[in-house]
Amino acid sequence: MSYFQSVPAIAYEGRESKNPFAYKHYNKSEVVLGKTQEEHLRLAVAYWHTLTAGGSDPFGTDTAIRPWSSYSGLDLAKVRVEAAFEFLEKLGVPYFCFHDRDIAPEGDTLKETNENLDVIIGLMKDRMQSSGVKLLWNTANMFSNPRFVHGAATTSNAEVYAYAAAQVKKGLETAVELGAENYVFWGGREGYESLLNTNLGLELDNLARFYHMAVDYAREIGFTGQFLIEPKPKEPTKHQYDFDAATSIAFLQKYGLEKHFKLNLEANHATLAGHTFEHELRVARTNGMLGSIDANQGDLLLGWDTDEFPTDLYAVTLAMYEILQNGGLGSGGVNFDAKVRRSSFEPEDLFHAHIAGIDTFARGLKAAAKLTQDGFFEQLVKDRYSTFESGIGLEIVSGTTDFRKLEQYALAQDGVIRNKSSQLERIKSQLNDYIFSV
Amino acid sequence: MSYFQSVPAIAYEGRESKNPFAYKHYNKSEVVLGKTQEEHLRLAVAYWHTLTAGGSDPFGTDTAIRPWSSYSGLDLAKVRVEAAFEFLEKLGVPYFCFHDRDIAPEGDTLKETNENLDVIIGLMKDRMQSSGVKLLWNTANMFSNPRFVHGAATTSNAEVYAYAAAQVKKGLETAVELGAENYVFWGGREGYESLLNTNLGLELDNLARFYHMAVDYAREIGFTGQFLIEPKPKEPTKHQYDFDAATSIAFLQKYGLEKHFKLNLEANHATLAGHTFEHELRVARTNGMLGSIDANQGDLLLGWDTDEFPTDLYAVTLAMYEILQNGGLGSGGVNFDAKVRRSSFEPEDLFHAHIAGIDTFARGLKAAAKLTQDGFFEQLVKDRYSTFESGIGLEIVSGTTDFRKLEQYALAQDGVIRNKSSQLERIKSQLNDYIFSV
Amino acid sequence: MSYFQSVPAIAYEGRESKNPFAYKHYNKSEVVLGKTQEEHLRLAVAYWHTLTAGGSDPFGTDTAIRPWSSYSGLDLAKVRVEAAFEFLEKLGVPYFCFHDRDIAPEGDTLKETNENLDVIIGLMKDRMQSSGVKLLWNTANMFSNPRFVHGAATTSNAEVYAYAAAQVKKGLETAVELGAENYVFWGGREGYESLLNTNLGLELDNLARFYHMAVDYAREIGFTGQFLIEPKPKEPTKHQYDFDAATSIAFLQKYGLEKHFKLNLEANHATLAGHTFEHELRVARTNGMLGSIDANQGDLLLGWDTDEFPTDLYAVTLAMYEILQNGGLGSGGVNFDAKVRRSSFEPEDLFHAHIAGIDTFARGLKAAAKLTQDGFFEQLVKDRYSTFESGIGLEIVSGTTDFRKLEQYALAQDGVIRNKSSQLERIKSQLNDYIFSV
Amino acid sequence: MSYFQSVPAIAYEGRESKNPFAYKHYNKSEVVLGKTQEEHLRLAVAYWHTLTAGGSDPFGTDTAIRPWSSYSGLDLAKVRVEAAFEFLEKLGVPYFCFHDRDIAPEGDTLKETNENLDVIIGLMKDRMQSSGVKLLWNTANMFSNPRFVHGAATTSNAEVYAYAAAQVKKGLETAVELGAENYVFWGGREGYESLLNTNLGLELDNLARFYHMAVDYAREIGFTGQFLIEPKPKEPTKHQYDFDAATSIAFLQKYGLEKHFKLNLEANHATLAGHTFEHELRVARTNGMLGSIDANQGDLLLGWDTDEFPTDLYAVTLAMYEILQNGGLGSGGVNFDAKVRRSSFEPEDLFHAHIAGIDTFARGLKAAAKLTQDGFFEQLVKDRYSTFESGIGLEIVSGTTDFRKLEQYALAQDGVIRNKSSQLERIKSQLNDYIFSV
Repeated sequence: MSYFQSVPAIAYEGRESKNPFAYKHYNKSEVVLGKTQEEHLRLAVAYWHTLTAGGSDPFGTDTAIRPWSSYSGLDLAKVRVEAAFEFLEKLGVPYFCFHDRDIAPEGDTLKETNENLDVIIGLMKDRMQSSGVKLLWNTANMFSNPRFVHGAATTSNAEVYAYAAAQVKKGLETAVELGAENYVFWGGREGYESLLNTNLGLELDNLARFYHMAVDYAREIGFTGQFLIEPKPKEPTKHQYDFDAATSIAFLQKYGLEKHFKLNLEANHATLAGHTFEHELRVARTNGMLGSIDANQGDLLLGWDTDEFPTDLYAVTLAMYEILQNGGLGSGGVNFDAKVRRSSFEPEDLFHAHIAGIDTFARGLKAAAKLTQDGFFEQLVKDRYSTFESGIGLEIVSGTTDFRKLEQYALAQDGVIRNKSSQLERIKSQLNDYIFSV
Repeated sequence: MSYFQSVPAIAYEGRESKNPFAYKHYNKSEVVLGKTQEEHLRLAVAYWHTLTAGGSDPFGTDTAIRPWSSYSGLDLAKVRVEAAFEFLEKLGVPYFCFHDRDIAPEGDTLKETNENLDVIIGLMKDRMQSSGVKLLWNTANMFSNPRFVHGAATTSNAEVYAYAAAQVKKGLETAVELGAENYVFWGGREGYESLLNTNLGLELDNLARFYHMAVDYAREIGFTGQFLIEPKPKEPTKHQYDFDAATSIAFLQKYGLEKHFKLNLEANHATLAGHTFEHELRVARTNGMLGSIDANQGDLLLGWDTDEFPTDLYAVTLAMYEILQNGGLGSGGVNFDAKVRRSSFEPEDLFHAHIAGIDTFARGLKAAAKLTQDGFFEQLVKDRYSTFESGIGLEIVSGTTDFRKLEQYALAQDGVIRNKSSQLERIKSQLNDYIFSV
Repeated sequence: MSYFQSVPAIAYEGRESKNPFAYKHYNKSEVVLGKTQEEHLRLAVAYWHTLTAGGSDPFGTDTAIRPWSSYSGLDLAKVRVEAAFEFLEKLGVPYFCFHDRDIAPEGDTLKETNENLDVIIGLMKDRMQSSGVKLLWNTANMFSNPRFVHGAATTSNAEVYAYAAAQVKKGLETAVELGAENYVFWGGREGYESLLNTNLGLELDNLARFYHMAVDYAREIGFTGQFLIEPKPKEPTKHQYDFDAATSIAFLQKYGLEKHFKLNLEANHATLAGHTFEHELRVARTNGMLGSIDANQGDLLLGWDTDEFPTDLYAVTLAMYEILQNGGLGSGGVNFDAKVRRSSFEPEDLFHAHIAGIDTFARGLKAAAKLTQDGFFEQLVKDRYSTFESGIGLEIVSGTTDFRKLEQYALAQDGVIRNKSSQLERIKSQLNDYIFSV
Repeated sequence: MSYFQSVPAIAYEGRESKNPFAYKHYNKSEVVLGKTQEEHLRLAVAYWHTLTAGGSDPFGTDTAIRPWSSYSGLDLAKVRVEAAFEFLEKLGVPYFCFHDRDIAPEGDTLKETNENLDVIIGLMKDRMQSSGVKLLWNTANMFSNPRFVHGAATTSNAEVYAYAAAQVKKGLETAVELGAENYVFWGGREGYESLLNTNLGLELDNLARFYHMAVDYAREIGFTGQFLIEPKPKEPTKHQYDFDAATSIAFLQKYGLEKHFKLNLEANHATLAGHTFEHELRVARTNGMLGSIDANQGDLLLGWDTDEFPTDLYAVTLAMYEILQNGGLGSGGVNFDAKVRRSSFEPEDLFHAHIAGIDTFARGLKAAAKLTQDGFFEQLVKDRYSTFESGIGLEIVSGTTDFRKLEQYALAQDGVIRNKSSQLERIKSQLNDYIFSV
């Protein structure tokens, strides 16, 4: 049975194509800087937005028209697997991602919940084999159920902590079973609603203990994927502990977890934290912590996570530049953690939206590759910091100077410091020509 | 000669006083929780806002009427010292703080600049002795002069780096000479204007090298005070490296600097970073990094550093609560990094404004002390996290459990998790009664 | 049957009371400035937050424990009426407010929906009579149902517009039936998700036509209450047409509607628009448009409508000051458009939260009354603008001058302009003493 | 004498040009939609940023290297005129704009100040004639001088009001003398620093009186240009009265000024108010109030007016689309109210920056023209609102229906409402192809 009968498989047809169900820019087998676009981008579909969610917002109920909406319970979960793989195959992307509760409903008990999961995992495994689609990462939803009202691994209630541990344990087993290349932690409720009643120190200690136990168990059962933490500053909580890349790194360093984890960075989470996406990528890259990305975009005039499909070529080009400089994303990928607008409620919109995002990333990749090939930024930076390549500058970076010597130097060349213009306006204009030429 | 002839020495007169030049709440010798208010608060005046600045803003020139405005150059600097100590003595606060360029003008050469500084430092030393007023901390202004357009310790120009080193070297010598209890780094230009032309990795490495050299030189010359970093997310740069407490801690940890530094936290910098002040204090306290505070407040509907005198009793009470929980600020203090509004341009406003801030902190201290004495928050937190004091909770915090055991526990008590209400609304109402009763 | 058996009727017991179910500050029969507190505040409970909602947020399902949660459909609606009036009577407030869909479920057809409404309206009318509780205002929910995905009175679909008209027609009939003192329009979907596909001019014209038809029909059926528009800048839409007070006034003026409408202003909506609450109240008051308020508070570090119960004494005192200056709210009132935190999920929290809000408003009223009695702000303002009471200033305000005369005056008194200090810091300190003395 | 000797006259050389001092996209004589690019864009240089300012920010002094910086006083003003016209002629733009205090220094008295102005106006008039460059608009700087600390036309001091009137009187005379095509009011200090001491009603009444007197005087002396108000929500004041387009329109309507004024909209002011630039343009256009634009861009992660040169092709294309839909800007134009970054301190950067902005507007114009020619948005909108072209929709827009008829319609077609998907993601992807093809 087909759930998207009106939509054909999406293929590359080039920028002049008038076919709404075609890629104009994403050509998966086209080679860029020595790898295919597919290998560079490692695209993934987010199960929650595309298969599970329905368009509700805080002031309105679901609007989405979905061919599977007449089903419920485990039947619905099964049908969604079928629809998911039809979608993935037609879209032609190699990966998908999910939370445990996206794919199977909770039962009355944890045991029943896990049994539901097992049914769906079995189906998925079959469909993964038949389709060749792989699991980029899975994670545990420890934020929707009321039991997590005070947090999961940072709850004030030890029973909830135990429950969360059981849930992640199952999640790691799922990752092994389905060959997930990463396992993600996003702490939607790991933070506080009010500092007034929060033992911040205890909660962070408990969170670190939780991660250590997860690492231990993962190694025990043979999970070889990468652990990822996904920073977000707020929403649903007032303040989340993994506020941004730097905060997450501080936490991992403090608790000796930095070698076990990398970061899964999301564009809209960056902007909610007051950063550009490229800033977060740069911070992670500089710290050797860039693991994977959640591709979407926010609205900088709105204060919540809009999770829009990414179409901003500036942001995407700069993101892809950071990824290229990082030597790629390793076991990570580009996961469309993005949802169709509530008003784009037709099933076809799921295709339109992914095509929009994928074409944008393809363009961003090509523009970033061109910038890289031309050494555009490298040359700028090399020129700008050239004084650190010899003389006093070289002594500074090689650690062979001290305040006395530096003072002597400063006194000697007094008053003749000459800085170079940044020419930022010219650079931005040149960047426009790069981005807009691909 | 008197610069504030119309203003008498400020004394405590109690809340019914109608005298505008009296403290209604700050009674420095009143004992609260075993220490005098003066010992708790360790109040300081910021030289730059009170003696040096004149009320300009990006769209307007100075408005302040200052009795010393007819002077210029080194003469002006000398007169300001006299005015400063008259102000400090009349206000009755024990400390002050300054940047090097607040107290003495730059000369044509670094040598001349340092000679100017020496003249003023000599005058200050005398007046400190005669008045008993002490130096809470000093710092180097490495942001106003055009040479720092691309940064100081994170500049792209090695010559500027050397100059900055020389300037901090002198600053450390000044700290020793005047017995400063702390030395502060605030990196106004240590960040980037654009990521496009920035070598973020090199800049941060250089910054760490700079701090290591500072620590080395300070120890060499016998400086025994505390090093402090003052986080701020942005302004004047687009992005500053010491974005907030957590980011600063990440940096210090990465470069092995965490034992040499604590944080000087500012209320308005917290809000610019998207945090409450109490959040920043809590993060620092939990990491053993709470060193000192810059007391002011911002306007959360404005996106720049307004540096208003603090009068919000909610924020100040919660800040003082964190400070009490920290066992005080050690060698740090409460520095009024606050400026009179551009429209409060009379010399008397400097007194009104400091009285407003000091009275607010006195009230905040007393409210926080009452909360502490009653164990208000402690009891809330103890109740809320009581499940971690025995059974499975105790196993979690003592590190004697793992995911297998936790899963067994979760499976066994399936479905019976019962959380407790946070009662946040009731807590906030009770807090009102605490704050508004002092 | 009782739905809040554990909670007694709430009475005033004074600030020393230890009873959590007592007012410490709200004493409804206490006279302030010639009216009782009850008459000043005209308190109302919001049906949607207190009876209908359950604590869900965009990342989690309902947490609230409600004694009526085992019911569904029309039975649930009936039970809620019973619970509502028990709540209202125990709380001792004189008013409530609702949306049509809060009180009764939609049926399969509009006819059935209206029949459901009629059943509940009948029940309510009886309970209103027996309790003496009155309807401050009602409104139509034209944002939750998927049919309103593109708006209601500003929809792109004429059929939806007709439906919305039918819904408001019924709402006006309900208002007449239950004696509502006001009728409110809040346009949750009256705005745009994207300007790219929006005919802004047509949508605003249609909105004005809608209001004119509403006014006509209301007069026709004898509705004598006040029409109110409730501004909000965004959420759920990207941009709402009634962005803030000034924008709403511009719209009403343009379409000749200003004499039929006043504004229902909400604190959190003000802050989302970048304004303080007192600013919005002042703008409305100055334009003769202050009709009613939705009492809550937001979190200025979060970008969405948190609808917290108001406990900030600064904001509430300044709001009450504006209301006193307005000569009260007329047929309007203080409606707690506020929801208990998701973590305050016990039924008792509904009482704690309303008590917190009501006590805060009682304190704010008393502080504002004291400020008014002392003429604190009046005197400040009178002094500050005294130059407009005679001479050239009087000519300006009486319209008897022109640019030529003003230039002559300016040339004549050249160079001797002397402004007065605003003394804002001193004012804020004095304000603290007012607020904290009640 | 030449002030920009190293820079040749800038000419169009096409997108492949490697010459940094060439236009790649702006070809002033190229015809687009029936007019030349020059006629469409009506480009102007802002005197204040380009000739007067020097790169200072709230934390640092001037950095700009300017060939005229050795001059001072009236000599400096004269030299700047020469430099300005050399710059304008080399850039090849037809217009410039200034504040009175940009072009000539204040003297000790108003009389002397006006005499200074007259000297420069004389020089300018000559150079305008010889060069053919025209004055798009002038305005009065009533925010920099300390006398305006409490406002100008909304001051609390009648003497200041008189001074402001004299200043605008002279400004209008200047406009007539130099043939300015518009006269602009930007109220940098027309707002409040604190509502606590502000008589908002009086200040707004006085502002309206001021505008009426300005209109009267302008007509009297034969000024035939357009009056423009430039909205900005804040900075330098906490709150400015002309917050955004809608607020300005409300004010103009209330005081009967709407036929005398249009709006001069600035991109960065829009974003500070929480709007997109295209939103402000649309609001103005729909109200017949779109007069002119200040072309720049802000940084949405920063909370102050960064006044960057515009390089964002998304924003500029949508702005140009609104301008085309408006039938152009009439007597208005595209004024680069933008400043080079503090780090772009070389004289050449003034050219690079203007070239960047101008090329961006040329591309935006061409993309907008293509969208217009293809009827891209028109068709979208026509389809989306098609239900208003016949039947019940036509009755609605023609005002021939009422709530009774609409209810009958709704009851009759009950339950069969079918909305159309907005397809926003597809639209954004198509828009990318438009913008990136020019």
